[in-house]
Amino acid sequence: MTEVKQASAAVKEKLYHLIDEKTQRMIDIRRYLHQHPEVSFEEKATGAYIAKFYEGKSVAVETNYGDGYGVVVVIDSGRPGKTVALRADFDALPVQEETGLPYASQNKGAMHACGHDGHTAYMLILAEALYEMRADFDGKIKIVHQPAEETPPGGARGMIKAGVLDGVDAMLGVHAWAPIPYGTIECTKGAVMAGRSSIKMTIKGKGGHGSAPQLANDANVAASFFVAAAQTIVSRRVDPFEMATLTIGNFDGKGSFNVIKDAVYLEGDVRFMKQETCDIVEKNFKQMVKGLETMFGVEVDLFYDTDYPVLNNNDALTEFVQHSLQTSNIAELQHLDMTHTESASEDFAYFAQKVPSTFMFVGEMPDDGVFYPHHSPKFVINEKALPLTAKAVGAAALDILANK
Amino acid sequence: MTEVKQASAAVKEKLYHLIDEKTQRMIDIRRYLHQHPEVSFEEKATGAYIAKFYEGKSVAVETNYGDGYGVVVVIDSGRPGKTVALRADFDALPVQEETGLPYASQNKGAMHACGHDGHTAYMLILAEALYEMRADFDGKIKIVHQPAEETPPGGARGMIKAGVLDGVDAMLGVHAWAPIPYGTIECTKGAVMAGRSSIKMTIKGKGGHGSAPQLANDANVAASFFVAAAQTIVSRRVDPFEMATLTIGNFDGKGSFNVIKDAVYLEGDVRFMKQETCDIVEKNFKQMVKGLETMFGVEVDLFYDTDYPVLNNNDALTEFVQHSLQTSNIAELQHLDMTHTESASEDFAYFAQKVPSTFMFVGEMPDDGVFYPHHSPKFVINEKALPLTAKAVGAAALDILANK
Amino acid sequence: MTEVKQASAAVKEKLYHLIDEKTQRMIDIRRYLHQHPEVSFEEKATGAYIAKFYEGKSVAVETNYGDGYGVVVVIDSGRPGKTVALRADFDALPVQEETGLPYASQNKGAMHACGHDGHTAYMLILAEALYEMRADFDGKIKIVHQPAEETPPGGARGMIKAGVLDGVDAMLGVHAWAPIPYGTIECTKGAVMAGRSSIKMTIKGKGGHGSAPQLANDANVAASFFVAAAQTIVSRRVDPFEMATLTIGNFDGKGSFNVIKDAVYLEGDVRFMKQETCDIVEKNFKQMVKGLETMFGVEVDLFYDTDYPVLNNNDALTEFVQHSLQTSNIAELQHLDMTHTESASEDFAYFAQKVPSTFMFVGEMPDDGVFYPHHSPKFVINEKALPLTAKAVGAAALDILANK
Amino acid sequence: MTEVKQASAAVKEKLYHLIDEKTQRMIDIRRYLHQHPEVSFEEKATGAYIAKFYEGKSVAVETNYGDGYGVVVVIDSGRPGKTVALRADFDALPVQEETGLPYASQNKGAMHACGHDGHTAYMLILAEALYEMRADFDGKIKIVHQPAEETPPGGARGMIKAGVLDGVDAMLGVHAWAPIPYGTIECTKGAVMAGRSSIKMTIKGKGGHGSAPQLANDANVAASFFVAAAQTIVSRRVDPFEMATLTIGNFDGKGSFNVIKDAVYLEGDVRFMKQETCDIVEKNFKQMVKGLETMFGVEVDLFYDTDYPVLNNNDALTEFVQHSLQTSNIAELQHLDMTHTESASEDFAYFAQKVPSTFMFVGEMPDDGVFYPHHSPKFVINEKALPLTAKAVGAAALDILANK
Repeated sequence: MTEVKQASAAVKEKLYHLIDEKTQRMIDIRRYLHQHPEVSFEEKATGAYIAKFYEGKSVAVETNYGDGYGVVVVIDSGRPGKTVALRADFDALPVQEETGLPYASQNKGAMHACGHDGHTAYMLILAEALYEMRADFDGKIKIVHQPAEETPPGGARGMIKAGVLDGVDAMLGVHAWAPIPYGTIECTKGAVMAGRSSIKMTIKGKGGHGSAPQLANDANVAASFFVAAAQTIVSRRVDPFEMATLTIGNFDGKGSFNVIKDAVYLEGDVRFMKQETCDIVEKNFKQMVKGLETMFGVEVDLFYDTDYPVLNNNDALTEFVQHSLQTSNIAELQHLDMTHTESASEDFAYFAQKVPSTFMFVGEMPDDGVFYPHHSPKFVINEKALPLTAKAVGAAALDILANK
Repeated sequence: MTEVKQASAAVKEKLYHLIDEKTQRMIDIRRYLHQHPEVSFEEKATGAYIAKFYEGKSVAVETNYGDGYGVVVVIDSGRPGKTVALRADFDALPVQEETGLPYASQNKGAMHACGHDGHTAYMLILAEALYEMRADFDGKIKIVHQPAEETPPGGARGMIKAGVLDGVDAMLGVHAWAPIPYGTIECTKGAVMAGRSSIKMTIKGKGGHGSAPQLANDANVAASFFVAAAQTIVSRRVDPFEMATLTIGNFDGKGSFNVIKDAVYLEGDVRFMKQETCDIVEKNFKQMVKGLETMFGVEVDLFYDTDYPVLNNNDALTEFVQHSLQTSNIAELQHLDMTHTESASEDFAYFAQKVPSTFMFVGEMPDDGVFYPHHSPKFVINEKALPLTAKAVGAAALDILANK
Repeated sequence: MTEVKQASAAVKEKLYHLIDEKTQRMIDIRRYLHQHPEVSFEEKATGAYIAKFYEGKSVAVETNYGDGYGVVVVIDSGRPGKTVALRADFDALPVQEETGLPYASQNKGAMHACGHDGHTAYMLILAEALYEMRADFDGKIKIVHQPAEETPPGGARGMIKAGVLDGVDAMLGVHAWAPIPYGTIECTKGAVMAGRSSIKMTIKGKGGHGSAPQLANDANVAASFFVAAAQTIVSRRVDPFEMATLTIGNFDGKGSFNVIKDAVYLEGDVRFMKQETCDIVEKNFKQMVKGLETMFGVEVDLFYDTDYPVLNNNDALTEFVQHSLQTSNIAELQHLDMTHTESASEDFAYFAQKVPSTFMFVGEMPDDGVFYPHHSPKFVINEKALPLTAKAVGAAALDILANK
Repeated sequence: MTEVKQASAAVKEKLYHLIDEKTQRMIDIRRYLHQHPEVSFEEKATGAYIAKFYEGKSVAVETNYGDGYGVVVVIDSGRPGKTVALRADFDALPVQEETGLPYASQNKGAMHACGHDGHTAYMLILAEALYEMRADFDGKIKIVHQPAEETPPGGARGMIKAGVLDGVDAMLGVHAWAPIPYGTIECTKGAVMAGRSSIKMTIKGKGGHGSAPQLANDANVAASFFVAAAQTIVSRRVDPFEMATLTIGNFDGKGSFNVIKDAVYLEGDVRFMKQETCDIVEKNFKQMVKGLETMFGVEVDLFYDTDYPVLNNNDALTEFVQHSLQTSNIAELQHLDMTHTESASEDFAYFAQKVPSTFMFVGEMPDDGVFYPHHSPKFVINEKALPLTAKAVGAAALDILANK
């Protein structure tokens, strides 16, 4: 992309206008999806809803794409050119919503607590707008509605295996980000999101009556010491200049109050920005598990898998997108941050391993400045950021396609 | 009972003979109940099954006795005399059976893992035998089928409140005990079973994404440290000559592997043989909870209730029962232990607070000597002990009634 | 001792009178010893002081008896009869005194924080009185001034090996006991004091700079987790009806604030009233050490020694002594307790393994009821109990000797 | 320094030649100092040794400079110009050496385990060479021999207060760095060394006999849980992208194996690269201490002091020094790293707050590639790096002075 071209200002203005007209529908779609969340690999109704949106449009729609309920849509200008892929994920989390919103989740134990409802809503409207503008660009736009981003192995790998990246020249993705103020987009070169390992382990002691511990082996006690001791991996084993987290998000020692627990099931999550850190955590975790077995006389079944790699933004494409954002006259974009990275993980990383990609964070902090972390039962987004997202991604896509 | 009388040897032989004839039915009943366990306060079908057993017999049957599904049956000789109450509990535990028995539990997540199926089976057959012998004794025998022994507040208190002890002169109860060999009965004066406190607590942190712990407050970590620290109450706070246990049987930190847990729910159980020990544990536990709140910045809702008192066997009645067992020529009774006590708790303790009572343990270790602790998913009893139990309790009851 | 004889009331009155006359000297001796404490196996000056006391008396005195500074004195009536041994220990503890007493320890880091100063003071005066009464009894009285009771392997074993028990028919010993009120003596049959294991262990990690933990292996962290985890041996591994304690009294992780500690040295102490408990603790401790090595990647050198056995009072002798105390008209003796036992350990247990022995506890709580535990830097005794002790032990000895 | 001048190549060659001639003396001095280490604020003999080195030279020498044994030497060209200060620290650590070197420490419990012996040795020889070349530069060179770098409040603050920076235009300092290969120098702009907080705390329980824990309050147990819990500050409270360490280097729970410890003394060290991180750690540590008091019923005296700030290299000066190193033809300098930073702290940071400063790390890894972390009892340096250090610092100083 040495000689950089861009779409015309008029074309972009047309896009912004279309999006402004469709904003209320975007909000409605987002709220509908918010009310009907489906967890990873179970998003059957959501996939069908998405596919239905495209009915009556002259676009190629493929459903059940990959291992799950993926939907891939190609908007073809009919003219030769590049192919740019735009990705939006649509799965929800196994979280019981506590927002108290009028359009809160109607599905018990499931919630769009990470903003994928907004991702899908902006993408559908953006796709419709780009479809209506298909005379205004060359080449193709491939809309990748990806399921199962939240749960390893994730939905991206299956879609790649099924060929979703065939012929794709560049790919764009975004994540709504509640800790960043509305009006800001982060678009940074290099490693921008953490790699992740996921852990499942069963600690097997021996059940028994609470009043005779000497005849049992309390798995809750062993597991508690393990969770405590595992903290030292981050605090003492990892270079303090390197990013690392280790979370035991699931401690399932459910049982009867007076029955000594025979087995505890733990699930956890590790994040890192370097493979070396990944290796150190894995080695020490496994050693600790071995030690636990001896220390407490328990038996542990461990499954440790490094599932999501570090997400690396392509340098050249990302500089191009940064330039596009700086010059596209998007009224709502007040600040472009080109330095920040985030510690979460994304299976968009798999796309980025295969084709030049850029992944961005869009500020969705509520206007009152009070935000809850992603995955919190009180998580909320700022819906005002949805049209901004559509305009930014749309403008960047049009600019990319301007370089045949 | 200064001038002690006993039932005649002939009457007892008649009882033993009846029980021997009915043993196969006793086993069948026990296995039926084992297949259809119901947890405390939900034993509707079991209560109905028990009541149905008495249909067609000229006995007074009261159902839904007390707060739950209690069944009380009076076998009246029609002649004046004492009233002796015989108690059997019939609830099961929220345990998933792993015995692999052909007649294993058919109710998912429920299991007779404490032998109450056997208690009920022997008692029904014993009641029938005594009913058939109602010409052979004076006074009344009150059969107390008690629900909800396993779960505070227990079923005994409700039955007492409803009047079950009115007119009762003495009460007998037993517990099947897997760690004791078949052929042995423990019948000891004084404190024979522990008192108990039960604990429910919610530790509230702040949920969030696993990759950004600094924005959340990990309740699983706080709870794990709490379980570890609480061990020191038994190890450092209680007089080492005093019996005390503290078990966190339920550690419900269930969640998603990569979501920092916002709140953890714990349930626990404390045992003691002296009120002073009870007080020390409670005081230190509460102090530890307060400290945890500050140490980890969490908020804790604590419910701490001392629900089951120490079970005290009445000295005079228990000496009488010991004498009865030693002299009643029960072939299967090989050893009478008059010294042992057990660390479990029993809401029979409430009956023992009101009327002279004796509570015994009947050895139910399998013949191969391999036993699992009570409440274990692999718990099994030795069915051969059921007729022995029926004979021992029956003989003692007849001896008591011989003293008008 | 089927036909039990006792010394005459007149003889005992003579003894009491002599002790009353000598009480001020007894106090003076005790205070002198309190000011000049010497820790176990280093009691050279104390041994010499004791030996000097006997100068000018027609008694056989042997010094440096056994492995240390033991002193053995025989008061021989010249007439045939039994030999009764009376034992008093004289070593101090490595504790820095904080009582603020005018006669506080003058030796930095050493303190009579367990009352052995009082043991020696009463015994010297009692020996003198019995020496003056040597015409009033038959047989021999052997005074056993034993060093090094506080530190394994203890002084008793060496004295036994050197022959101190040769010809001894019965042995008496006492311990001043601050938690018991003045006026009370505990004299109980059976197991009266705990057995003990002692532990020494070095946890070897890897030193380094506090700012680069990933290059080191923090032994202070590993040792802290070990101390925390070891609490579960008492709380979860030992039968709650059995006595057990595990104390890490020495955690030597001294170092520089910003240097990651390369190795930590721990010393600990285990108490039990049954050999089975001893075995359970040892087995679990060793398993935990092994697990720690793997869990934290450290190397541990462990020395685990069961040094003091359970102290068992001889039943027949102890009943005799109980009877003696009940009938000897000792004015100061207000209460004889025949049920209590204590959780501390004593190498008097070795004597009791070889000859019939009785070990008693004498109440030495201060009159204001405020007492500090034995071994506390604020430990004080009640000196009023010293003459009571002399009278009780003296009377019992005279009674024993009355049975030739 | 917009128009950058440099000293001539000939002058630098002269310096290198002088240093090469004096290298054996440099090694001898270093080994002498290594044998005679003195810990912070007690370096009386070392200060005297340094001062004696300058005897007979026409330089101004001030001793006992600042709060301790600082030595300041001014080498004055007699011509106007800039003043450049060169700093070398000379204190040792309270570490027992375990290197087995023939010239190992002769002072028990003290060791040059951080390389300050080498700092002083190279600086003395460099100072002598520059003194001999005082006709070859203009302005002044101020040699700052600083004591007490290892122990807060450090020696730098006192020297600054005493005026050591008066008239100083630029300052240079270095640290020998064992993890970096010989031949490499790290010279980086911005924050290059961590800030530090230091912690002292006494945890007061209640002493007592190991066999009666219920009468005492075990400070070793409380302290162990604290050390374990404090790990979660780094693992769960700090942004995983930010550098933070927390080390408890001193855990002084020394005591008798069977005496429950009444009080434990801890000392610790915190490192960070941002003030915000410093604040988070301090806030959480203090909260944890408060929680510990309640949780374990102990009393804590806490002293928490942020003593060493982040060390910030001046951008302009550091670029100048980088350029100097790249162009000075120092044969031994094989690699100049301009990106790395280190997590240790330095009170050189105080100098850098006041005057433009550059602090560098010189690779001193042994040739066999086996190195021990700084502060390890086995720490060794690579003496070959000493003349390289002298040449690099000398050349940079001469270049600075070339810009009057």
